[in-house]
Amino acid sequence: MAADENIQGVWAPALTPLDDRGAPDPARSVEHINWLLDQGCHGIALFGTTGEATSFSVGERQAMLEGLLAADIDPKRLMVGSGCAAVTDSIALTAHACANGCTDVLVLPPFYYKGVSDDGLFAAYAEVIERVGDERLGVFLYNFPKQTALPISLALTERLLSAYPKTIRGIKDSSGDAASTRAYLENFPELAIFPGNELLMSEMMALGGAGTITATANVNAAAIRRAYDAARAGDPEAGALQAAIGETRRLIQGFPMIPALKEIVAGLRGDPGWLRLRPPMVALSEAQKAALHEGLAKLGLRLAA
Amino acid sequence: MAADENIQGVWAPALTPLDDRGAPDPARSVEHINWLLDQGCHGIALFGTTGEATSFSVGERQAMLEGLLAADIDPKRLMVGSGCAAVTDSIALTAHACANGCTDVLVLPPFYYKGVSDDGLFAAYAEVIERVGDERLGVFLYNFPKQTALPISLALTERLLSAYPKTIRGIKDSSGDAASTRAYLENFPELAIFPGNELLMSEMMALGGAGTITATANVNAAAIRRAYDAARAGDPEAGALQAAIGETRRLIQGFPMIPALKEIVAGLRGDPGWLRLRPPMVALSEAQKAALHEGLAKLGLRLAA
Repeated sequence: MAADENIQGVWAPALTPLDDRGAPDPARSVEHINWLLDQGCHGIALFGTTGEATSFSVGERQAMLEGLLAADIDPKRLMVGSGCAAVTDSIALTAHACANGCTDVLVLPPFYYKGVSDDGLFAAYAEVIERVGDERLGVFLYNFPKQTALPISLALTERLLSAYPKTIRGIKDSSGDAASTRAYLENFPELAIFPGNELLMSEMMALGGAGTITATANVNAAAIRRAYDAARAGDPEAGALQAAIGETRRLIQGFPMIPALKEIVAGLRGDPGWLRLRPPMVALSEAQKAALHEGLAKLGLRLAA
Repeated sequence: MAADENIQGVWAPALTPLDDRGAPDPARSVEHINWLLDQGCHGIALFGTTGEATSFSVGERQAMLEGLLAADIDPKRLMVGSGCAAVTDSIALTAHACANGCTDVLVLPPFYYKGVSDDGLFAAYAEVIERVGDERLGVFLYNFPKQTALPISLALTERLLSAYPKTIRGIKDSSGDAASTRAYLENFPELAIFPGNELLMSEMMALGGAGTITATANVNAAAIRRAYDAARAGDPEAGALQAAIGETRRLIQGFPMIPALKEIVAGLRGDPGWLRLRPPMVALSEAQKAALHEGLAKLGLRLAA
């Protein structure tokens, strides 16, 4: 499948705000997603790692998606995370997303068991694709070996692409490893390959990369978009813009990522409700908060743009 | 909480048979569980790692438990696995087990995120215990760092035990590490500490261990029970019986454990339906099957007892 304009660019794996009962909160999420799109995000990866996806039940995830669509979020701007430990859950979420017009899904491998063979991972992806059975379906493979210890190998990707050439559309490579992303790009030029953080964005775009799907887009989307556009245009400023977003990234990733991002968004919105996290995530300590804010101030960041 | 006679001994983390649609099959499971109890198992850990627990949805797991109870399996002989990536799922499964008279649960930490602090794991366990809010509840902590990369530290165990002294009842230590099990025993003599395989059973019983919860009990329960009884009685045969079950263990664990056990049970029952696995598990290769059967024959095993 040729790379699709709709699935290039800067995508934010949206944080999941919680209500006062600790459940995913569509109202706050609609506001956040609309702001991210206004800031220049091409799209939103709903329920990725940054969105605490695996910390919510299937029902909580389906209710959130329905809430977003009821508030007129465009389903074509969403890529829905649907990979669970249980393939039956992955099937349920994928089918639900498709039924609601969200035909692009980001699929973790079943992530409990370790030392699983490529045969086992192939069987899991195949079961999701075949049981959902929707020819519109676009599957993005989610490579995040630091969380899963289950790398999406080149051989597995090749096998899935051969079996399901119309369905396999891309890869989110959250390995953080340039060699990994480069290998995907060299072997699968027909796929949309997104490095999972913006440090590699411009370098990989030069090799055919699709952009980035990056946690920090939750708070720094406008700058990442400017760097993306400059890189696409071959603008002389591109290097400086890439360097600047890299500095912000390196600051924030020095803290637990999800709590740090919620801390920043709570400040931007003046809404302490944004600080809520689902266990096992916990809030930053007071010392971490102080260090984060000091670092942001030193960078002179105006994250609200 | 003082160690309870009901939660000592040889427990089998039962395999989960599948029906011809690939769903958990209560009929085959009832037959298997009754056989395991007849073979001498003190109880059954339902939906542990060996039972492919995390590969099934909450609904599939609840339906299976209801099917077993409808067939008169004694809820007091069951310890129900209820730990999921999402605490809301863990709460749902724990509450459902309690409501059905199965008040002992085996709880994995939320297992997707890595590098999680003890604060985060404490918050997750606390949320399950408090939201279920059943004073009969007995929680067994499930330490399996090879699968989760989230060790249940001594500090976390101490903190949970201080906060919930009536609820925290024991630990299944599947680390396979004698030093780990010994440390639990030394620090928490009031808990039922089960090594997750029989290689350590007798050695740990001598230090106060509760017995074992071991995958291979699915096919070798009678021999493990004889070794357990001999160790308890200080029988002179105890060492030889322990050595014999160790030999069987070492043979089987040379193969992918779950497919190997299903291969053996399919043979014992003469029922190829037992070979079904939920992805990402895959069947043994023909070469693996041949090597397994050759090994079993060399040991002169009559696994059906």
